[in-house]
Amino acid sequence: MREPLSVERALERVLAAVTPLPPETVSLASCEGRILLDELVAEADLPAFDKALMDGLAVRASDLAGGVRELRVADTIAAGRDPSSLAALAPGSAARIMTGAPLPPGADAVVMVERTSAVAGDARSVRCLDVVAPGENVAPAGSDVRAGERLLAAGDWIGAAEIGVLAAFGRIQVRVRARPRVAVLATGDEIVPPGTTPGPGRIRNSNGPMLLALARDAGAETLDLGIAPDEKEALARQLGRGLESDLLIVSGGVSMGEYDLVGDVLRSLGVEVLFDAVAIKPGKPFTFGTRGRAVVAACPGNPVSGYVIFQVFIRAALRRMIGSATPAPPMLRGVLSGPLRTRAGRTGYHQARARFESGRCVVEIVPTSGSADLVSCARGNALAVTPAGAVSLAAGDPVDVLLLDHFDVR
Amino acid sequence: MREPLSVERALERVLAAVTPLPPETVSLASCEGRILLDELVAEADLPAFDKALMDGLAVRASDLAGGVRELRVADTIAAGRDPSSLAALAPGSAARIMTGAPLPPGADAVVMVERTSAVAGDARSVRCLDVVAPGENVAPAGSDVRAGERLLAAGDWIGAAEIGVLAAFGRIQVRVRARPRVAVLATGDEIVPPGTTPGPGRIRNSNGPMLLALARDAGAETLDLGIAPDEKEALARQLGRGLESDLLIVSGGVSMGEYDLVGDVLRSLGVEVLFDAVAIKPGKPFTFGTRGRAVVAACPGNPVSGYVIFQVFIRAALRRMIGSATPAPPMLRGVLSGPLRTRAGRTGYHQARARFESGRCVVEIVPTSGSADLVSCARGNALAVTPAGAVSLAAGDPVDVLLLDHFDVR
Repeated sequence: MREPLSVERALERVLAAVTPLPPETVSLASCEGRILLDELVAEADLPAFDKALMDGLAVRASDLAGGVRELRVADTIAAGRDPSSLAALAPGSAARIMTGAPLPPGADAVVMVERTSAVAGDARSVRCLDVVAPGENVAPAGSDVRAGERLLAAGDWIGAAEIGVLAAFGRIQVRVRARPRVAVLATGDEIVPPGTTPGPGRIRNSNGPMLLALARDAGAETLDLGIAPDEKEALARQLGRGLESDLLIVSGGVSMGEYDLVGDVLRSLGVEVLFDAVAIKPGKPFTFGTRGRAVVAACPGNPVSGYVIFQVFIRAALRRMIGSATPAPPMLRGVLSGPLRTRAGRTGYHQARARFESGRCVVEIVPTSGSADLVSCARGNALAVTPAGAVSLAAGDPVDVLLLDHFDVR
Repeated sequence: MREPLSVERALERVLAAVTPLPPETVSLASCEGRILLDELVAEADLPAFDKALMDGLAVRASDLAGGVRELRVADTIAAGRDPSSLAALAPGSAARIMTGAPLPPGADAVVMVERTSAVAGDARSVRCLDVVAPGENVAPAGSDVRAGERLLAAGDWIGAAEIGVLAAFGRIQVRVRARPRVAVLATGDEIVPPGTTPGPGRIRNSNGPMLLALARDAGAETLDLGIAPDEKEALARQLGRGLESDLLIVSGGVSMGEYDLVGDVLRSLGVEVLFDAVAIKPGKPFTFGTRGRAVVAACPGNPVSGYVIFQVFIRAALRRMIGSATPAPPMLRGVLSGPLRTRAGRTGYHQARARFESGRCVVEIVPTSGSADLVSCARGNALAVTPAGAVSLAAGDPVDVLLLDHFDVR
């Protein structure tokens, strides 16, 4: 009988077996959700000049040292004005200035427009109602970013803020790793397409659409291989197609029954099976292998098993493919809202709802009828994790929890 | 002078002004990340028959009451077999059975294959090494789902598990609301496209690419309107184009300077401006209006302002458009890792890194040079929120925190 690997050991083997995909250069609009391959170093100061942070009057602060007074308006400076075109501000004068515009030489502060007023009968003068200190409402050159500063590191995850930073420094072509191509194949003579009414003894394919959605959501390009029967030749044909992808996810056919052909057929196709049993509940017969750079993750046919195996192992494999330095699922420590008992033997993953109350993550276990109960997954937003061995936890006990994607909108 | 609205009041007005988009029917592969419009009620029991949960032997548990014994193999039942084709199991006999297959009449338990062994010289018999209780390793008909049970509610967010549930019950066409069409326009004479080297006094457009990325990530279809100058006619043309979308996001041109034309031009285009100042820092001149069903969110040009306004208001507007019943950003309570001081007057949003330690959310404030410092956003994964009024918090004090999308991979 197969000796199941621990979850930790299995995850190590998965991550050791997966190689990051080749680099490619994509546009700024296409790099979201990927990992930056090259660091970004500022080639110039930002701002490049002393910049107004408010609409108002650029002044010499020393002119106002004596209190509120009138100043002569020497210029009006819009954002975008060439700093070298600006005349120095003479004592007793001021320049109307817009947010983002360069200060004229000599000016060292901005009085906000709300604190100025017109001078009756004299359009060329303005009254300052506030005293300002030198530097007030001004961003000095280089105060946001210094030339030579590293703004983004190789390995950084690229989100909207990173895209803004890349744009600000002219990096409109971005080197990242290719998006993983993921094929999904459901197996089993009893499975019919979701659009079909299942005959007696049969069920619709829920694993395929679910695994495809998980893969898309993890940033992969997906290929739906549909359903393969429990028949060697047809299975080999469809598994062979899937092996042309970067990652092939199979559901079903990995238990110990006479019709569980997936492991054997994968081996016959040249796949090196790295393990075929993990001490995880649900999902024990999870089978994982490689052929060249292609990776195969074959999950048991029970939908909850596939869901859990994806969250624990397959997402990590995909994150490694795109170059993440921290591919493993992040775990946090929560507090149980009620009791949780499990039997010995395997690391348990329990559908759960996590919510945050008074700074703590409160974890409520979702009732379930077992590993076919995909509805329990839909009712959860997290997985509570219990160690192998008999576990008897009470309300208020700490528990490890893995927050699932989009947990906050569910 | 404009009296700024509180953040709460402004968010109420945004959500009251936004109407959900019209329904459309899409395929299972296209409904992810949207909101379900129609509930899903199970039309039949799941499983539809008493189902084997293990590969092994379907038995009459009472046959094994006396202990380990040999049974005669009467049938081999694969998953997918028509239950009505199964002969009743006679006392003293067993059927080889695969996971997911229907139990024959009379059988009430499954002995896992690992706990059976062959009988030397008698291929038609098998030895059971385990005693089983009635019901062991069997999912009775209806144990996962009962016909008539509500599995998904109208208003549920659709993720991978929900897609699996929809597939399992044959719902391959799904009614959801249309994806929001979002146009993004940056304004300002000083702004140049990211692929251009800015002349003296000018800066690259970082807001446009950042806001487009945020909108895409929130599930919108996006239209990049580029950059408009601070000139009424050109601005009116581009704002007019943007108003053909469901939501127009503008950056810049909403301060109090002479070149801040956006509010006036929007009004001249028939937009009803609902507010043009919010007691939020950064982002005070946030201007919000509607024209028919179209919505305009005009943010100050400082990149951090746009980033914060999106997270607090625009994401909520988009979630309301797709039909979410809980569009407002979810807030949780964390604990500060260091001191945080702010001045009075406006609700403060501070770039922060949230991490989970011992069941608590620890919030570290990201140092920043101010509202132009988009790099600080890239270094955070959350926003710490301080109330209007003078705030002086110490390490260990509780603080409200808004976890940003993908916070766990950053």
